[in-house]
Amino acid sequence: MENLRERALLVHRQAKGKLTVELKVPVTDANDLSVIYSPGVAEPCKQIRADGEEIYNYTVKGNFVAVVSNGTAVLGLGNIGARAALPVMEGKAALFKAFAGIDAVPLCLDTEDPEQIIQTVKLLEPTFGGINLEDIAAPACFVIEERLRQEMGIPVFHDDQHGTAIVVAAGLANALKVVGKSLADCRVVINGAGAAGVAIAKLLLSMGVGDLIVCDTKGAIYAGRPHGMNVIKEEIARHTNHRRISGTLADVIQGADVFIGVSVAGALTPRMVQTMNRNAIVFALANPVPEIMPDEAKAAGAAVVATGRSDLPNQVNNVLAFPGVFRGALDVRATEINEAMKIAAAEAIAGLIQPKELAEDYVIPNPFDRRVVEAVASAVARVAVETGVARVTEKTAERIRVREG
Amino acid sequence: MENLRERALLVHRQAKGKLTVELKVPVTDANDLSVIYSPGVAEPCKQIRADGEEIYNYTVKGNFVAVVSNGTAVLGLGNIGARAALPVMEGKAALFKAFAGIDAVPLCLDTEDPEQIIQTVKLLEPTFGGINLEDIAAPACFVIEERLRQEMGIPVFHDDQHGTAIVVAAGLANALKVVGKSLADCRVVINGAGAAGVAIAKLLLSMGVGDLIVCDTKGAIYAGRPHGMNVIKEEIARHTNHRRISGTLADVIQGADVFIGVSVAGALTPRMVQTMNRNAIVFALANPVPEIMPDEAKAAGAAVVATGRSDLPNQVNNVLAFPGVFRGALDVRATEINEAMKIAAAEAIAGLIQPKELAEDYVIPNPFDRRVVEAVASAVARVAVETGVARVTEKTAERIRVREG
Repeated sequence: MENLRERALLVHRQAKGKLTVELKVPVTDANDLSVIYSPGVAEPCKQIRADGEEIYNYTVKGNFVAVVSNGTAVLGLGNIGARAALPVMEGKAALFKAFAGIDAVPLCLDTEDPEQIIQTVKLLEPTFGGINLEDIAAPACFVIEERLRQEMGIPVFHDDQHGTAIVVAAGLANALKVVGKSLADCRVVINGAGAAGVAIAKLLLSMGVGDLIVCDTKGAIYAGRPHGMNVIKEEIARHTNHRRISGTLADVIQGADVFIGVSVAGALTPRMVQTMNRNAIVFALANPVPEIMPDEAKAAGAAVVATGRSDLPNQVNNVLAFPGVFRGALDVRATEINEAMKIAAAEAIAGLIQPKELAEDYVIPNPFDRRVVEAVASAVARVAVETGVARVTEKTAERIRVREG
Repeated sequence: MENLRERALLVHRQAKGKLTVELKVPVTDANDLSVIYSPGVAEPCKQIRADGEEIYNYTVKGNFVAVVSNGTAVLGLGNIGARAALPVMEGKAALFKAFAGIDAVPLCLDTEDPEQIIQTVKLLEPTFGGINLEDIAAPACFVIEERLRQEMGIPVFHDDQHGTAIVVAAGLANALKVVGKSLADCRVVINGAGAAGVAIAKLLLSMGVGDLIVCDTKGAIYAGRPHGMNVIKEEIARHTNHRRISGTLADVIQGADVFIGVSVAGALTPRMVQTMNRNAIVFALANPVPEIMPDEAKAAGAAVVATGRSDLPNQVNNVLAFPGVFRGALDVRATEINEAMKIAAAEAIAGLIQPKELAEDYVIPNPFDRRVVEAVASAVARVAVETGVARVTEKTAERIRVREG
């Protein structure tokens, strides 16, 4: 770990960051200059003026994503501010390129005011094909994403919410196959009602989960809970925990089939796992130290365990989702990334592991499995077309992918 | 010309724009991922958290420039909007890279409200090392630049104003050597009181011009002119035309040593040139058709003629200025680009043509003269240090340049 620290500092310092902007066209003489700048550049301008959609044919927009943050909830570091968040956003942009060939740039905004973020991002719409919100603290992140989704005509995706939710849903689908249960018959407990917890809850509800309870630090969330509620938790309460069960995690975990932790190290004890249903599934995603370590969870009776760590099996890594999700959305010029597209992404990720390969330690593909991005992109593009949010047909998209690939 | 149109469309369409974002570090396996993203990326974040200046050592910021426009005054096309302006801003960003190795991205803002532009650009400060404003209509451009210069800690430079002014000043300095006159003894008439005209006037005043009159479409601007004034023109009037001469361009051009046109095709007639002082200097910068063609101006008695066109001698091309200006400012982490730095840039450009090389058709270096960017950058960095706006010493800057070069 000491070694990783040193190496991370060295790599960042030597390269001065991770991104560089390069030219796709030559600029070596006056002739080039007249083509890519004045006076030639006026021609694509006029085309776009005449037909706004032409911007996708003549500019970077269709492959350009802004990674937007204000640094209020960065990794495990918390609210470190826009400046200190820049290495993470630059890293995220690097992953967009490395995994999906998407040109992405970090935009760290110096404000904690949701309205300022909303106004700023909206004004940037002409330039970008999509917006990836990142590391913005809850509950502001919910408001910001919701408003931007309503008020912008390009995809807006808060990866801490939906990227995590998609990979969790994929892993859970496969874990359920391993233990022979169905989501509709399961009791699921999510521990943590931040960005990830809320998004996982919403996605599992869309996918038809049988019984779902979300816990925060005050215990189970239920309609009418007298303390520690907010607008988002009220909404969660309306759609989950219909029997209005109260109590601590230790209380509500009893008899549950699935635990999904997006909370803190040690939140799930072996004793709690022992009280879960047979063939329990435990997703312990706190980073870097999980809610429970896999060996402890298994010793206590869990059948399948996933974490956020790369050194353990079944890593829930967002890089399995966001590159392909944006690739697919950009390829068909989707106006949004809707629930159906997220579910399609989860199914595509899950489907990469063949039934005969499935095992308790292999329910989630490796982040560097090269098939993932194409599978996710194809599924997302197809469902964008099916749900009417694509602005080019998938045939066009397929041609685009073939040509660019 | 038809050929250029076709070629410009083809080049833009084939490449889908001109920029791409690339990685400076490898991302090929889980180990790379842990270095450039979670958990390793937390280390540079912590360094920056502890000392904000470290952002320059660990991120792209120190070499990252935003090319910001709202598309209200694009080339000769006028107010074509933020979307249609994107090819120009992308082209500008490409020139930053091609000429000065600067990573730049276009940001086209969907608003004509100066206050919204100001607030948006301010919020972007954590990410960028400098802001290049581009193709924003006067008089909003003056307000926006002034406010941003006051309220931001990184250089803000409206290239349509200052880039043009710097190259004009450089060319004029050399033209005066050719005809054996000094700026202090000259009568100069600027035709056009938009972004470029105002900035040229200010820079020539800083450089000690003897007598200066600025004309707009209503004729000479003078203090107390009863019509067609605004805040900027009032300011111009306070510092120029001290004898409060009124009249048309044809009136005030009589006896002038220098004409600088940033106006419209045909604004200067051969007859007007005939009324100028001996060895007249004519900068006819309207694009694509100048205020007067060089052969006509010379036939009417002009000694030195410059235009904005690449197919004619003495091209006033901003690419001679902005890449080196930003290179120098970024290298010493200047907090602004002040008048002294602009004058230094102009002198550096002028100084590249040796006295024995100077000729009426060679007062401005070729845009592809490789010496320009280094000469300008060095001069700008040196003067930034001398005027106290640099945040690293020039020695450091020099090391940076040597290493990066």
